[in-house]
Formats: sequence, C-alpha cells, structure tokens
Amino acid sequence: MLVSLKEINRLIGGKLIGDGNTIIKSVAPIESAKKGDITFCFSNRYLPHFHKTEASAVVISPSIPPNGKPVIITSKPYGALISLLKFLEKKEEKKGIHPKSVISENVELGEGVYVGPYAVVEKGAKIGKNSFISPYCYIGENVVLGEGVYLHPHVTIEKRVKIGNQVIIQSGTVVGSDGFGYHQEGKKMQKIPHLGNVIIEDEVEIGANTTIDRGTIGDTVIGEGTKIDNLVQIAHNVVIGKNCVIVAQVGISGSVKIGNGVILAGQVGVCDHLKIGDGVKVLARSVVTKDIPPNLTVSGFPARDHREEKKIK
Amino acid sequence: MLVSLKEINRLIGGKLIGDGNTIIKSVAPIESAKKGDITFCFSNRYLPHFHKTEASAVVISPSIPPNGKPVIITSKPYGALISLLKFLEKKEEKKGIHPKSVISENVELGEGVYVGPYAVVEKGAKIGKNSFISPYCYIGENVVLGEGVYLHPHVTIEKRVKIGNQVIIQSGTVVGSDGFGYHQEGKKMQKIPHLGNVIIEDEVEIGANTTIDRGTIGDTVIGEGTKIDNLVQIAHNVVIGKNCVIVAQVGISGSVKIGNGVILAGQVGVCDHLKIGDGVKVLARSVVTKDIPPNLTVSGFPARDHREEKKIK
Amino acid sequence: MLVSLKEINRLIGGKLIGDGNTIIKSVAPIESAKKGDITFCFSNRYLPHFHKTEASAVVISPSIPPNGKPVIITSKPYGALISLLKFLEKKEEKKGIHPKSVISENVELGEGVYVGPYAVVEKGAKIGKNSFISPYCYIGENVVLGEGVYLHPHVTIEKRVKIGNQVIIQSGTVVGSDGFGYHQEGKKMQKIPHLGNVIIEDEVEIGANTTIDRGTIGDTVIGEGTKIDNLVQIAHNVVIGKNCVIVAQVGISGSVKIGNGVILAGQVGVCDHLKIGDGVKVLARSVVTKDIPPNLTVSGFPARDHREEKKIK
Repeated sequence: MLVSLKEINRLIGGKLIGDGNTIIKSVAPIESAKKGDITFCFSNRYLPHFHKTEASAVVISPSIPPNGKPVIITSKPYGALISLLKFLEKKEEKKGIHPKSVISENVELGEGVYVGPYAVVEKGAKIGKNSFISPYCYIGENVVLGEGVYLHPHVTIEKRVKIGNQVIIQSGTVVGSDGFGYHQEGKKMQKIPHLGNVIIEDEVEIGANTTIDRGTIGDTVIGEGTKIDNLVQIAHNVVIGKNCVIVAQVGISGSVKIGNGVILAGQVGVCDHLKIGDGVKVLARSVVTKDIPPNLTVSGFPARDHREEKKIK
Repeated sequence: MLVSLKEINRLIGGKLIGDGNTIIKSVAPIESAKKGDITFCFSNRYLPHFHKTEASAVVISPSIPPNGKPVIITSKPYGALISLLKFLEKKEEKKGIHPKSVISENVELGEGVYVGPYAVVEKGAKIGKNSFISPYCYIGENVVLGEGVYLHPHVTIEKRVKIGNQVIIQSGTVVGSDGFGYHQEGKKMQKIPHLGNVIIEDEVEIGANTTIDRGTIGDTVIGEGTKIDNLVQIAHNVVIGKNCVIVAQVGISGSVKIGNGVILAGQVGVCDHLKIGDGVKVLARSVVTKDIPPNLTVSGFPARDHREEKKIK
Repeated sequence: MLVSLKEINRLIGGKLIGDGNTIIKSVAPIESAKKGDITFCFSNRYLPHFHKTEASAVVISPSIPPNGKPVIITSKPYGALISLLKFLEKKEEKKGIHPKSVISENVELGEGVYVGPYAVVEKGAKIGKNSFISPYCYIGENVVLGEGVYLHPHVTIEKRVKIGNQVIIQSGTVVGSDGFGYHQEGKKMQKIPHLGNVIIEDEVEIGANTTIDRGTIGDTVIGEGTKIDNLVQIAHNVVIGKNCVIVAQVGISGSVKIGNGVILAGQVGVCDHLKIGDGVKVLARSVVTKDIPPNLTVSGFPARDHREEKKIK
C-alpha cells in the first residue's frame, strides 16, 4: 500500500499532529517498525520504544505525550487499530464452486458463495449467501449455514448442525462429534447414541482444532457473539450464553449451563451439570466444581471468590 | 417418526401406564419436551420438570411416582434410553467406493465397505467388511482395519497401524503420529526415528482431535472396549488395558502402563513410565507422579489416596 | 531385513562381544524381543529383562555387565539407537505431483518435491527441493516452504507463513490461524484482524493437532531447532528461541517471549506478555505468571524456584 497519513486519519477520525502528506507503506509493531511504517503506542510501558522508533508515524492514545514525530491522537485506540487493519486487510475475492468439490443433491447455495477444492457438501445442506467454504471443509447432511459464514480449511460440520450468520471457524475444528456418553453394563460400556444437535448463533467465532460435541437428546448451544479460542473442548448439551469469551484449552463438561458475558480464561475446567451465572469471570487454570452466582470473579481449584482465594495463598 | 407408545414399550420392555395408542413423534429432554415428544425422568432432581412437562409420555425409573401422564416404568432406564435412541437413529446407508477417492494397489476391501469422497487408501491396506471410511480419511500403507469400523471425516491413520473390529473414531483424530523422542547432542536435539506401531483393539471408541503416537520400538496399545474422549494426548509406547475411560484433554506421557477398568477423569496428566493398576480412578485435573496400586481412587497433584487428599484440603 | 551383527556394529561403532555372524532380522524392546531381534539395555532398571531376553543380541552401555549373549558395548547408546533405527527406517520414495492435487498459478516447486493426492497449493507459494507434501495438506497463498520439509497428512499452512528447511510437521496441525484478539465495545466483541505472520525456522519439528496463531501485527516466531509436541497452543505474537522443547498440551498466551534452550514440560501454561530467560526449565503442569530469569528451574502455580516450591509442599 501507499497511503498518506492524512488519509489514514480520515479512516481513524483522530487528531493529526505533523505532516499529513507523510507516505505510509505498512503497519508494524512498535518494537520493530521501520521507516514507511505506521505503528501504535497506547500504554506508557511502550514509551521507551515510542521515543526510539523509526516508524514514520504513530497512533497514540491521549495519555502519550507527542514527541515531534507525526502522530494521530485518538481516544479510541483499539477502534483505530481495527479500522486501520480492516483497511489494510486483503479481502478474499474468491467466488463460485470449484470443479474439484462434491456438491450433493438437494443442496441450496446462496448468492456469492465460495466452495473451495475438495470441499464436500452432503445432501440437504443449505449455505447462506456470501459464505466461504475453504478446501476440505465437510458440510454434513441437512446442515444449515447462515450468511457470511467463513470456514477455514479442514473444518468438519457433522449432520444437521445449525450455524447462524457471520460465524467464523478456524482450521481443524469439529462441530457435531458424538458426545462422550456410555452406559456401563458389567465391565463393558455401551455407547449412548447422540441424536441431539449443535446450534451456533450469529457472530460466534471459533478457533482452530476445537471440538464441540452434539447433544445426546436436546442441543449443545453457543450463544450469539461468543468467541472461542483454539483447542477448547465443549461437551454434549453444554449451553453457553451470549458474548462469552472462552480462552484456549478450556474444557467444559456435559450439560453445563453458562450465562451471558462470562469469561473462562486459559486452561479452565468446568465439571458437569453446573450453572455459571451471567458476568462471571473464571481466572486461568481454575476448576469450577460447583455453581457460580452471577458477576463473581473466581479462581483456584475448587474455584471460589478470587478475593478469598488470594487470602488462602 | 410416528410410533405408538405401545410399540415403544415393546422396544423397552417396561410397564406402561396410560394410553398405549398415544402417538409419539420425537424424543426430547425433559426441560424442553413438547406435545408429541417422549422424554425421560430417572432422578428426583428432575421431578419439578416431570410435573410440568408438555411431553406426551415419559420413561421413568421405579423411584419416580407416576402423575397421571402416560409413563413407561423401567428398572433399566439407561438401557431403555439406548434402545429407544438406537431405534430412532437413522442408519448410514452408504456403500461402495466413491469415484473421487484414491484406492492404491494391493488394497483389500471387505464386503459392504464405504469409502467416501477424497478418502485415500495407501497400498497394502486392508479394510474389513462393513467398515465406513468418511471423506478425507487417510489410511496409510499396510494399515489393517477390522470389520464394522466407523471413521468420521478427517481421521488420519498412519502406516502399519492395526485397528480391530467395531472401532469408532470421531473427526480430526490422528493415530500413529511419531512420538516426541529426541536425543540431545550439545544444544541440538536429534530426532529418534519411530519404527514402532499403534494397536487398537476391538470396540475401542475415540473422540475428536485426539492424538495417539506410535511406539519408538514396540507398540502403543489401546485395549479392548476402552473409550477415549476428545483432545486426549497418548504418547509413544503407552499401553492401556481393557474397558478404560479416558476423559477429554487427558495427557498420558511416554511408556505409561494402565491396567483394566481404569478411569482418568478430565484434564488428568500422567508422568512417564508409571504403572496404574486395574480399577484405579483418577479424579479430574489430577497429576499422577508415581505408580498407583489397583483399585485406589486418587486425586490432586501429586495424586494420592482421595480420602487423604480431602483431609489435606 | 537380514543383516549380520558385524554389519550393525560397523554402523554403531561400538565394541562387539560374541558371534559377529549372528543374523538380525528386526529390532524390539527388551521386554518383548524374540530370537532374531536386536534390543537395547542402557540402564540397570532393565537388568532383569536383559538376563532373560530371547533377543539374539543386545546393545548395551558400558555400565551393563555382559552376560554371555552377543552384545555391542557403546558409550553413546542413544546415538547407536538412532543410527540403527535410521538404517532400518523405510525411506519415502514418492516423488512428483499427484494428478489429484490442485497446484495454482505462479507456484514454484523445487526438484524432488512430492505433492500427494488432494493437496492444495495456492497461488504464489514456493516449495523448496525434496519437500514432501502429504495428502490433504493446504499450502496457502504466498506461503514459503524450505528444503526437505515433511508435512504429514492434513496439515494447514495459512497464507504467507514462512517455514525453513528440514521442518517436520505431524498430522492435523494448523499454522497461521487468526489470533484470539477482540476489542470489547459495549457487550459485543469486535474481531481484531490479524495481518501478522508465522515464521518457523530450520529444523523445527511440530507434533499432531497443534495450533500456532499468526501475529496481530508483527510475527509469531518458532526458533531454529525447537521441538513442539502434540496439542500445544501457541498464541499470536509468541516468540520462541532456538532448541527449546515444548511438551504436549502446553498453552502459551499472546506475546510471550521465550529464550533459547527452554523446556516447558507437559500441560504447562504461560500467561500473556511474559519473558522466560534462556535455559529455563518449567516442570509439568506449572503456570508461569511472571517473568522467569535465565537458567532457573521452576514449578507450581504460580511457578517459582523449584527448590522453594518443594519446601512449601
């Protein structure tokens, strides 16, 4: 890219100090930015880098004192970062159905859909308009995908799963595997068939190599706007509310109910059949062993009020 | 489906109270069942739901007092659940070799085998009758698969791995990856070639995105009837006995030997070269750091007799 | 194979005691070796097996007293093991481009490259000579792969990722997924586009179903010679030094900087933005919550000097 700082400021809507005709070629982190780059400094801990950066311009928050270098001051630094990165992002231009794919009978494909090489869409599946199905994605029988869904390569969506609009799923993730349910008869375990489903609501985003099991009877549900990281395990019949954040390597056991706006930090475990209230934060590596009332921050194993847990340690 | 309650009771073999001609259309959990559904109530904790459910019929255990609604009483409620779900489950009817697959030379395919689109079967592999190879499954050179094996999409079976009869593997699982074995020379680590194998015995079931490494020399073994959940790590030369239960996100280090009927609950870790006796239960999130004698229930890090561990806390 | 013990000793360069014309057919672990096998005994704990093994010959370290059986004594037992296993390992002989693959325009393929069935190489990608691309590997736009790279089946390399020479990646691993970065606006979280990259240096080896996220801006870097096990999570902008060992199920949060020669044992977690010095060892299941100076061995949650941690317990 070749764009003037003036134009970038038009995008960000901040206050520009310095030469608006400065030409920007790329974006880089403040530790390694070179001439031609624009970079960011939102926190005092990066001030030493700010003073010695070779970047041609810096987007700063109001708490950072300008130092003579061209800057854009903004009170919404992360909004500015997102606007700029979206502007720079190369949009996918692929459309249409790759001849090396398998589209079965009775499939409905919306306008502007891309189906990549070696994708398989089984019979009865529906894919909403402008959705992007990367190579090796498996769309099982009677799956419903909304509009603007983006599946990275190697995503498996098993039969009947329902996925809303604007959902993004990174590579290698499996949605709709059978739950881990067995009934012991003598020494042997007999598999309980899993006839339930997985429902993924609008604007959910899921990382790489995560697994989401289908319900036994009844459904596993991921609520609108919830974001899930890599290598997360979500067992059968788990119901997660809206706008939750589930960080990498979390494991959620069967039939857990999680409210809205809940944060589960990295490597947390949640035992089965528990209820976690709205707005709860579970700190990293904790194990939730009983119900948690709303708006509490908990930590430890067993997870308890974080203020008490700190006293114990 | 449209089936009378009488017919369902014939399947379950319980005691029917109420109108046997009640028509059942579907099965649903007791919290959300509607008219036309059959549902289940096996425990007093669901009694409030039982009293207000809209379901047309309920399968109950003898401890639940009937309340006027059509019920089937059974002393084997989970057996009844499995019978009903099996009856409702739509059987896979696919057979034959999809033209968009790669079957190499010297491959033996049993009667009734299905090989889906984009599956690859390398030379010398043998697949037993009625096995189901989903799209994108990779069957390496000289792999042996038994009868009635079901591989979900995107399963990787590396060369020479031996898999028994009636084995089920969910999507994204890798069997036969090289073990994590290196020999340090100065600062560098030299890879130890892995020439061992993986042996998976009959009726083993494995979840999604799990990894099972091949032995260095000698084999990694998963014993008959053992069930393994999602995102489990099983290192080189681990030997697991029969009818074990390995819950999600467990990690088992190299050369561990596990007896029969062992349960490792979620997120457990087991250090290398240890022995875990028959019938041991390791509670969730524990770390096993030394040998465990048979039939003990252990918890904590380091894992010790659960009764003592509770005293310490 | 059929090879004399004399020839094996030529390979290993040890001291042969016994009949050099003994014919060796295979290699096996000392617990299960049979007539015709060669096996290994490097430690006194295996002495009982050494005395009763049916193996035709044993490679031993100088601390093991010979017992009349043909032996090769070597002071570098692991070097000997590696030499022998490399000799026995069947080399991949596949070359060329499988007709059932998709090679896009402007792709550069070095001499001796293998591209397996159903591999996809997107436009602008470069693959160095003698690299091996297994079935279902996805090589994104403008990816650069060095020489002698070996990708097992189902590996996903997202766009622009740079991979050095002699890199090995096991099945199901994802390199270059978007990082887990969101900006909260009210209740909703807005995705931060990830325009950074992943750089994997020479001789790195990565296990199965591991995930390595791309940087937000700036890169995620895995240093030369580092070895990573299965199911490991490496978040955006993590920088790992040379010759590190990262064991299975470790999770490393965003922007962590790790020095050279660091060992993270199984199931370790590292909180975001921390620095871990050269030569640090983090014992299994620890959680690193603050910076660790060089050459320290730490354990526990929070991870601290292992000598102190042991006192506390």
